[in-house]
Amino acid sequence: MNNYPTYAHSKVLITGGLGFIGSNLARRLVELGAQVTLVDSLIPEYGGNLFNIAGIEDRVRVNISDVRDEHSMKYLVQGQAYLFNLAGQTSHMDSMEDPFTDLEINARAQLSILEACRKYNPGIKVVFASTRQIYGKPDRLPVDEGHPLRPVDVNGINKMAGEWYHILYNNVYDIRACALRLTNTYGPRMRIKDARQTFLGIWIRLLIEGQPFEVWGGEQLRDFTYVDDVVEALLLAAGDDQANGQVYNLGGDGVVSLAKLAEMTVAANKGGNFVLRQFPAERKRIDIGDYYADWRLMQQQLGWQPHIGLAEGLRRTLDYFRATLKDYL
Amino acid sequence: MNNYPTYAHSKVLITGGLGFIGSNLARRLVELGAQVTLVDSLIPEYGGNLFNIAGIEDRVRVNISDVRDEHSMKYLVQGQAYLFNLAGQTSHMDSMEDPFTDLEINARAQLSILEACRKYNPGIKVVFASTRQIYGKPDRLPVDEGHPLRPVDVNGINKMAGEWYHILYNNVYDIRACALRLTNTYGPRMRIKDARQTFLGIWIRLLIEGQPFEVWGGEQLRDFTYVDDVVEALLLAAGDDQANGQVYNLGGDGVVSLAKLAEMTVAANKGGNFVLRQFPAERKRIDIGDYYADWRLMQQQLGWQPHIGLAEGLRRTLDYFRATLKDYL
Repeated sequence: MNNYPTYAHSKVLITGGLGFIGSNLARRLVELGAQVTLVDSLIPEYGGNLFNIAGIEDRVRVNISDVRDEHSMKYLVQGQAYLFNLAGQTSHMDSMEDPFTDLEINARAQLSILEACRKYNPGIKVVFASTRQIYGKPDRLPVDEGHPLRPVDVNGINKMAGEWYHILYNNVYDIRACALRLTNTYGPRMRIKDARQTFLGIWIRLLIEGQPFEVWGGEQLRDFTYVDDVVEALLLAAGDDQANGQVYNLGGDGVVSLAKLAEMTVAANKGGNFVLRQFPAERKRIDIGDYYADWRLMQQQLGWQPHIGLAEGLRRTLDYFRATLKDYL
Repeated sequence: MNNYPTYAHSKVLITGGLGFIGSNLARRLVELGAQVTLVDSLIPEYGGNLFNIAGIEDRVRVNISDVRDEHSMKYLVQGQAYLFNLAGQTSHMDSMEDPFTDLEINARAQLSILEACRKYNPGIKVVFASTRQIYGKPDRLPVDEGHPLRPVDVNGINKMAGEWYHILYNNVYDIRACALRLTNTYGPRMRIKDARQTFLGIWIRLLIEGQPFEVWGGEQLRDFTYVDDVVEALLLAAGDDQANGQVYNLGGDGVVSLAKLAEMTVAANKGGNFVLRQFPAERKRIDIGDYYADWRLMQQQLGWQPHIGLAEGLRRTLDYFRATLKDYL
């Protein structure tokens, strides 16, 4: 069914482990019998939420600390076989308002995590969660990994640096590392309190609350990966040394306009409304237009492909949040 | 003769102003009648040297401070028409041994300089000295500006981030900025104490001291820009709003192997010896092979081209250091 090695009894560290992707990954790893430690800062504006590990709380170790805390990280990486390095500042707006915090988390802390691995656990395998945002406005579609990097916000620049530290430490120091460039990821346990993680979170929340949501622009094309498919990609990349030093795009099983996505989300909810609004003028300058990824490299090298289609993924996501809404507000 | 606007009476700030390129630029700007302020940290391992402004010391204002000093920079950028942002940590080896200092100077300080411009002097024009190192190992030669960025050391990653902050602040905040990706720059006032700035410095020093110098490898192809041509490029880029938001390669009037360069340097010195050594194993992994730039974009858009050939440039450089050696040791 899957072609990654057994994670049973493996020691695994997940930064951002109480966040959206981290907690879904933790659930899967617990199922596979791994010994999982979750690091999370629980900064309220970020994705960490203790409810995300409801039901597995006794089967994981939770360590509340910040990836900027060098001493904490130095200790935590020791003895681990795998590090899924998912902690990050993800908000575009926050990165522009406070560029230094974004730099400290997305660049400097990454460097210090890698230095800790180099000094205290050089045998670890690291998988870094990078982002499509580092491409900026595409020259060509679909965007492959060789596309120039021209980030359009501070967050993209710092994530680009963070990604390259990983590749560098693989190439120069043999700290086995690779990076996945995630596109829009959605699914249970995403942040829906606001748009800091993704606009889709706020759409889902408003739909469940019976309120109309806003779609900005509407014509832009995007791709979406359901979180279980991202988890699968992370496990494949960690388990295969072919991935070392590589950067892989993730993507979806298709491409949709935001207006079409809005319709699909309403359909998955069996009702609801949205309003199309003009793209705000102040964001126009950093609008990247259409984006969707060419993820064939990951498919060819690691056998990954998305399994959950958008309609099904949206249905599952809405079902999850309908049952748990109060724990995400 | 040149097609940049008058700099007479213009207020100009140069970071790294006591360094190799900064001081040559300062001399030219003083000649053109500009009001020049030089910022330099005078960190002994970096390029700053008070002797570099011998003869113009009464015609420039010198401010000893570090670009990491936010308060100093906040004050200094005010009222300036141009900022030539040349301060940087340039040593590959230092960036690997102390990656955090490199990050603080080449990335974080750049962000804080740009924030200072945005808040206190949004009308300023900024020219940033970037580097060919951000390309890493070329896929194709000559390397044009669209070539993928794949830095092979910490220095390259942080310079890449520093460069992109400039382009971003131009695109998002209208802080007019551009970047020149410098290749090997050489000439009077370069650092010759050690190889921190360029291996050519140490070659020249040893030649003048009558000792043999070492050439590592020898077969690698490289291009070289004489410092006066770099100064010309900086002045053109600052003076032309066509450059805003752009990145330009600089290059040389030809391409040479390191072995050929060694021969030319000996010839320019009218004597001397060198030893060819194998490329050290520990540096093999970050060896980028051959590199030379396609600088036609700068030529087409801003009318720049190198004027000083390598033989002539080496002769001038050796003449300079023969007369001033004691001030550079």
